[in-house]
Amino acid sequence: MAISKRVKNALEGASWVRKMFEEGEALKRIYGEDNVFDFSLGNPNLEPPASLKKALKTLADQPISGMHRYMPNSGYSETRKAIAQYIAEESDLPFEEKHIVMTVGAAGGLNVVFKALLDERDEVIVPSPYFMEFKFYIENCGGEIRLVETYEDFSLNLKAIEDAIGDRTKAILINSPNNPTGTIYDQESFRQLGDLLKRKTKELGKTLYLITDEAYRRIVFDQIKLPIPFLYYPHAIRVTSHSKDLSLPGERIGYIAVSPLCEEFDELISAIVFANRTLGFVNAPALMQRLVAPLQKNSINIREYEEKRNLFYNALKAYGYDIVKPQGAFYLFPKAPIEDEVAFVKELQSKRILTVPGRGFGKPGYFRIAYAVEKKTIEGSLPGFKEIAEKYGMGRR
Amino acid sequence: MAISKRVKNALEGASWVRKMFEEGEALKRIYGEDNVFDFSLGNPNLEPPASLKKALKTLADQPISGMHRYMPNSGYSETRKAIAQYIAEESDLPFEEKHIVMTVGAAGGLNVVFKALLDERDEVIVPSPYFMEFKFYIENCGGEIRLVETYEDFSLNLKAIEDAIGDRTKAILINSPNNPTGTIYDQESFRQLGDLLKRKTKELGKTLYLITDEAYRRIVFDQIKLPIPFLYYPHAIRVTSHSKDLSLPGERIGYIAVSPLCEEFDELISAIVFANRTLGFVNAPALMQRLVAPLQKNSINIREYEEKRNLFYNALKAYGYDIVKPQGAFYLFPKAPIEDEVAFVKELQSKRILTVPGRGFGKPGYFRIAYAVEKKTIEGSLPGFKEIAEKYGMGRR
Repeated sequence: MAISKRVKNALEGASWVRKMFEEGEALKRIYGEDNVFDFSLGNPNLEPPASLKKALKTLADQPISGMHRYMPNSGYSETRKAIAQYIAEESDLPFEEKHIVMTVGAAGGLNVVFKALLDERDEVIVPSPYFMEFKFYIENCGGEIRLVETYEDFSLNLKAIEDAIGDRTKAILINSPNNPTGTIYDQESFRQLGDLLKRKTKELGKTLYLITDEAYRRIVFDQIKLPIPFLYYPHAIRVTSHSKDLSLPGERIGYIAVSPLCEEFDELISAIVFANRTLGFVNAPALMQRLVAPLQKNSINIREYEEKRNLFYNALKAYGYDIVKPQGAFYLFPKAPIEDEVAFVKELQSKRILTVPGRGFGKPGYFRIAYAVEKKTIEGSLPGFKEIAEKYGMGRR
Repeated sequence: MAISKRVKNALEGASWVRKMFEEGEALKRIYGEDNVFDFSLGNPNLEPPASLKKALKTLADQPISGMHRYMPNSGYSETRKAIAQYIAEESDLPFEEKHIVMTVGAAGGLNVVFKALLDERDEVIVPSPYFMEFKFYIENCGGEIRLVETYEDFSLNLKAIEDAIGDRTKAILINSPNNPTGTIYDQESFRQLGDLLKRKTKELGKTLYLITDEAYRRIVFDQIKLPIPFLYYPHAIRVTSHSKDLSLPGERIGYIAVSPLCEEFDELISAIVFANRTLGFVNAPALMQRLVAPLQKNSINIREYEEKRNLFYNALKAYGYDIVKPQGAFYLFPKAPIEDEVAFVKELQSKRILTVPGRGFGKPGYFRIAYAVEKKTIEGSLPGFKEIAEKYGMGRR
């Protein structure tokens, strides 16, 4: 065997998202692109805001000397200052340039944070259902993932989290708005989680970290105000990106923000910058760093996603699907009407509808619909969803 | 202690390049930017070629719908095809799209290749002097670096390499043109290395890989023709970037090319794409993938670097410095006139000349000069180099 054994094992437990994506490509070749309703991948269909396009044009027309060169591994001072100012306003905490490190997206940022924090066999607690790539990110650095179930409505189960915290716990990773459920954990949950972590930090005599993956932080509906985790716990690290709010997922631009209240701050930032360099990211892409700096308060039109959620959720609900109404991100996570959700996902495929089985997110019995697609794709899929609902007698229960 | 113990240890063995860079910043604050001659960092001073600027302008003026979205983790088909075609022409080997994976620079690419290949305690042989980040890249995946000395003229010592190959060997990493020496390993060296690896693969009953870091592959002087490693060994993997040839180091755009002659090719590519995704790179920056696709035969004006090498090398040689004449990259790696090269580097600092001690590259007694700087910086530094040479009686030996 030539490749790494660990990677070989991981490849055998194939990614469900990828598998569905590939089956979808095959279906598209047979039926044509427009006749396949692909909800497998969370790939934003919206174009970046006009402000970004304009900034790109300005920079292309009037290039700045040296604008493609290396900069410090933490990123441009100007970009970090702009982000710090944005978070300072949002949180009323003394964020400065030194608290920000620019990263190759949120996926890059999470790998960097885990590398900076974890030693062999250190545990990171992750509420489930969850984005399964987290497992790889944690294991890349020798850490272990410790899953904790959420309640039926996907809200945080603080009791279960408390039970999971032990000597090997190093951090808890919270992804809100959540992929795959679209759930937003509320202020009270963060308050209780912060209190729990403070108490456990004392009990265990070691610092526990609250790492938040806030990649969907701007995709929030129903005029909800997203809680700011920094306000509830001092040792908090935000990892996020502009993949969704500015619709730039292919450009790999994100950041890490470390709370000014974090203890041993200098050492932690040094470790993060070191990890950013030596994991091979080196720095976040230069051009994108420049473009996003002045756009911290901009975003794509969130209402478009909200309208799609409304359309999709209301229709599926009417057909009898069992769904927790999501308040953010661009996912629906319905319960399958039969235990074997893989079989149900196949049923949907017979209507040329592509979704991902819940076991791809640690939650068999459910399936994920990614609806960052054209409205017509949603509309086109509805008759198929309806027929399958009728076949399974879902409306009658 | 809050951060990872491994990272804490690594931080204590600080990077010499970084250390010098920081001392330089301090000197610049005192004496002014123009009065400090900073040769610490290999940060190309040349602007990207006009063709790249033009391509950026075209794309900014006429954005392509969806051009910032996710694409397959291996990159755009069009970009991979363009690179495959370029390498096919160069090597006369049947390179196709499927042999290419776009990466976040060469540093990202190397991490991906090591992750795909290495298991715990697998060894990677690296000729020294060497770019010290390699050690971190290899250790990130649980591997171990095995250093092998080169000859006095920095050419490959095949005997030493043969002695280093054993049961734990998985690969040899060759960086040519070399950082820090500027050495190009010649055709005969690659032929002998290929033969050795073929023989050892048979003897050990396992595949050994030849990984080449070709980040400086276009920065070649004296009309030398750079050997194509693919021609000398089937299990060869090229990792490179457009950081130097198109002067885009801050943009993080590079690629991995796997030889079509590589055994178990499909599995290897699957492992590489998986590693690219799960290490958090996800994909190479989208915009840059588009820009570099048609520019595979373009580059900055290499003659500018050659002229700088000539100016710098000839002057230092005349002052009595002991230097192997480099044939590529943009580094000089002279021998210090005293054993303690750190002390000598400090002497140069007294003339506001910043270089990096050889121990930062596994070679005490030498120092590195990175000359991808303005000509006036080189010229301004020469009186200082001369004075120090006289102080140490270098011209007289």
